[in-house]
Amino acid sequence: MNQDNRNLPNTSSSVRILSWCDELRTFSSDPDAYTRLYLTPEHRKAADWIKSTMTGAGMAVREDAVGNIVGRYEAIKPESRAVVLGSHFDTVPDGGRYDGIIGVMTAIECVASLNETGRRLPFAIEVYAFADEEGARFTTGFLASSAVVEGVVNFPFKRLDANGISVSQALHSYGLDPEKVGEAKRQKNEFLAFIELHIEQGPVLENQDLSICPVTSITGQTRMQVSVSGQAGHAGTVPMHMRRDALAGAAQMICNVEEICKHKNNLVGTVGTLSISPGVLNVIPGDVVFGIDLRSEDDDIRHSATNSLLERFQSIADERKLKLSKAVMQTTPAVSCDPALMDIISQACFELTGSNLTLNSGAGHDAAIMSQLCPAGMIFMRCKNGISHHPAESIRENDVKVAYLALKDILERLARDWRTEPSRKPLNDTE
Amino acid sequence: MNQDNRNLPNTSSSVRILSWCDELRTFSSDPDAYTRLYLTPEHRKAADWIKSTMTGAGMAVREDAVGNIVGRYEAIKPESRAVVLGSHFDTVPDGGRYDGIIGVMTAIECVASLNETGRRLPFAIEVYAFADEEGARFTTGFLASSAVVEGVVNFPFKRLDANGISVSQALHSYGLDPEKVGEAKRQKNEFLAFIELHIEQGPVLENQDLSICPVTSITGQTRMQVSVSGQAGHAGTVPMHMRRDALAGAAQMICNVEEICKHKNNLVGTVGTLSISPGVLNVIPGDVVFGIDLRSEDDDIRHSATNSLLERFQSIADERKLKLSKAVMQTTPAVSCDPALMDIISQACFELTGSNLTLNSGAGHDAAIMSQLCPAGMIFMRCKNGISHHPAESIRENDVKVAYLALKDILERLARDWRTEPSRKPLNDTE
Repeated sequence: MNQDNRNLPNTSSSVRILSWCDELRTFSSDPDAYTRLYLTPEHRKAADWIKSTMTGAGMAVREDAVGNIVGRYEAIKPESRAVVLGSHFDTVPDGGRYDGIIGVMTAIECVASLNETGRRLPFAIEVYAFADEEGARFTTGFLASSAVVEGVVNFPFKRLDANGISVSQALHSYGLDPEKVGEAKRQKNEFLAFIELHIEQGPVLENQDLSICPVTSITGQTRMQVSVSGQAGHAGTVPMHMRRDALAGAAQMICNVEEICKHKNNLVGTVGTLSISPGVLNVIPGDVVFGIDLRSEDDDIRHSATNSLLERFQSIADERKLKLSKAVMQTTPAVSCDPALMDIISQACFELTGSNLTLNSGAGHDAAIMSQLCPAGMIFMRCKNGISHHPAESIRENDVKVAYLALKDILERLARDWRTEPSRKPLNDTE
Repeated sequence: MNQDNRNLPNTSSSVRILSWCDELRTFSSDPDAYTRLYLTPEHRKAADWIKSTMTGAGMAVREDAVGNIVGRYEAIKPESRAVVLGSHFDTVPDGGRYDGIIGVMTAIECVASLNETGRRLPFAIEVYAFADEEGARFTTGFLASSAVVEGVVNFPFKRLDANGISVSQALHSYGLDPEKVGEAKRQKNEFLAFIELHIEQGPVLENQDLSICPVTSITGQTRMQVSVSGQAGHAGTVPMHMRRDALAGAAQMICNVEEICKHKNNLVGTVGTLSISPGVLNVIPGDVVFGIDLRSEDDDIRHSATNSLLERFQSIADERKLKLSKAVMQTTPAVSCDPALMDIISQACFELTGSNLTLNSGAGHDAAIMSQLCPAGMIFMRCKNGISHHPAESIRENDVKVAYLALKDILERLARDWRTEPSRKPLNDTE
C-alpha cells in the first residue's frame, strides 16, 4: 500500500476518521455515557470542534440558524451548485460513537483529501453536520434537516424538553435567534445531490460479510399506542371465565403483530414498550398500554398491515370484553433513494465489495428529509452485531476505509458525469 | 323486626359493625389511602382501639408477643377450651376497609351480644385480631397467625422493610420483645375450632346473588418469576427472521398460561407483573421478566400445570433462541376446611340463604395457617364487583347482618353439640 497516494487504500484516513469519532465522544453530558442532546453545552463544544476540523480540511464554515454546522469547499467555478455530504452529530442518551458522526467525519476526510492536493471538482461540496436528528431532548426527530428543507414550516418552537424549556428558549440560550430559524432553509437550485453515509444499525451486512452497500429506500413508519382496559381483580378469587385480563388480551395482540409481520416481506413490527396496571403479582392486570412500531419501504404494505392489526385487536378486545383504544402517534411515508444517484453509488460500492447487495433502511435518516430538496442517496456501513444506540456500537477500521474510498469514488464519478456532458445537468434535477 | 330480641335480624348490630370498620379506616398512614402496615404507629392506634372495643364487649384482652390482639370471653366453666373467631387487621397499601377487619368486628359483635344478656357457652370464645396477614411491610404473608401456630419456627426476625428496618428492630420499637416471640404460640389442646369470616374478594357470590357461603378449602399457590432474554436491537433494521425478541416470546408464554388454566377446573393462573428492557418504542425488547401466580385447591393439578407450563416455556424459548430462567418464589399447599366444622357452617348458611353453594378460597387466609392447630372453617361474604385490596372495596349492610347471624348461629350449634353429647369432643379433635 502506497501511503503517499491518497487515491489508493489509505490507512491514515480511516484511522483519522476513527480518532475523530473518539474525540467527539468526549463532548458528552456524562463521562460514563455518550449523551449529546440538541442545544446543550456539549452540543456547543462538539459544534466548535467540528467547525475547526472542517476549517482544517479547507472548508469555509458557518453555523446555520438552527445550529447545524455547514462546511463548504468551493468548486472550480465559485458559486456552483453543491453536492452535499453529511449526517447528524447529536446522539441518543447513552448512545454509540458512530451513529451519525461516522457520516460527518468521513465526509470531512473526503474534502480534506481533495484539499490536500488542491483538487477542485465541477461542483462545490458542502458537508452538513445536522444538530438534531435523534430528537432525544425535545422528542423531535429530524428537526435540523427539516429546517434546511422547510425553514419555519412545522418548526417546533414551543416543544418542551423534560425540564419545561422550549425549543425557542433553548435556541436563545444557545446563542441563536429563534426569529431567524427560516434562514436555515436552502433552495432546491443550490444542491445537486445529498449523500449520507451511516452505520446500518442492523445485522445484514455483518451476516453477508460486507463492508458497505447502497441503500434503495428509507422506510416508512407508523407508531401507535394501544391501550387495553379490562378489570383488575384478585389473582386467586376470579375464575378464568369471569376474567377481563388486560395483559392476556395484550399478549394475544402482541403475538398477532409478530404473526402479521413475519409473513410479509419488507415489513417489520415491534412492540417495544408495555406497561401494566396495577402491576402486582397477585392482581389480574386491569390496564395495559403498549407501543407498536411498524415499518416498511412499501407504504401500501404498511397501511394494510396497520389496518389488519387494528381489526384483529378489535376482535380480540370484543371477544374478551376489553376496551380498546389506539392512537397513531406518527406516520412517515417511505422515501426511495434517487435512482440515478443510486446507480452511481452502486457502481462505487460494487467496485470495492464485489457485491450487488442493496438494503432498504429500516431506520429513518436525514437523507429521507433531504430528498425533498434534491436527489438523495445513502451508503450503509457494517456495524458489529447490528447494535446501535448503545455503548457497544462498534465498527471496523477496514470498513471505514472502504466507505471513505466509496464516498471519494462517488464524488469522482459525479465529477466525470459533469465533465463529459457539461450541458446535461447531472442526476434527475427537479428544478 | 323486634329490636329487643337480639336473636332475630338486628339492624343495629350490622350498623355498628360497619361503623367500627369506618372508625378503623382512620388509623392509616395516609388520610387519602387506607394503609396500615405491621408495627407502625397506625398499627398501635388500631390495636389500642380494638382492645378497648373488645373490652367493651365483655372480653379479657391482651396483646400477644407479636402484636396480635386477643380477646377472651370465658365459658360457663372457666379455663375451658376456646372456639376462636377472627381475622387480620393490617391492610395492603391503599387497601379496602373490609378485608380482614370485617371478620374481627363481626366476631366482637357476636361476643357483645352474648355478653349483653350474660349468656355463656360451654366453650370460651377467643377473638384474634391478627396483626400481619398481608405482609405488605416485610413481604411476610401470615406472619401473625404463623407465630400463633409455630412460635419462633420460621419467624422472620431478620426480614427487612423498604427502609432496611428488620422485624426484630420493628418489634422492639413497637414495644415488644423479640426474645419473647415464642410466647405467641398456642397449644393444640387450647382450641376447639377456628372460624374466619372474610369478604370473598371475588365475584361469584355477587354473580349468584348470595350474601354468604361456606368455604370448602383454601387454595394452594405457586409463585414463579420467569426471565426471558433475547437480543435488543433496532426496531427498523433487524429483519423479523433474525430477531430474538424477548417480548414476542413472553407474549406467547403468557397466552399459554391462560390456555392451560382455562381448560382445567379448579385452576387459575395470572401474570400480574411484567417488565421490559430496554422498554423503548423503537427498540426490540432484549429482556422481559414476568411473574406468574398459579392457584388450585388441588395440589396435583397445580403441580402438573406448573410442569406443563415450564415445558411449554422451554420449547418456546428453544424455538426462538431465547434464554429462559425461572425461579419458584413460593409454593403453599392447599388446605381443606374441617369437614365436621364445615357441616355446621353449611347448615347455618343454608338456613339464612337457602343455598348450598360452597366456594374454594382462591386467596390465602389465616384459617389455612390455623388449620395446623385446630379444625378450621371459613365463611365468605359478598363484596361489590368482587373488588378487594382497593379503596372501591364495598359490602352491603344486609350481608353483614346475615354473616353476623350465621356466626352467632354457628356458635349456638357448636354449643348444642357440646351439650347433647358432653362425652364426645366436638369436631374432629386432633388431640
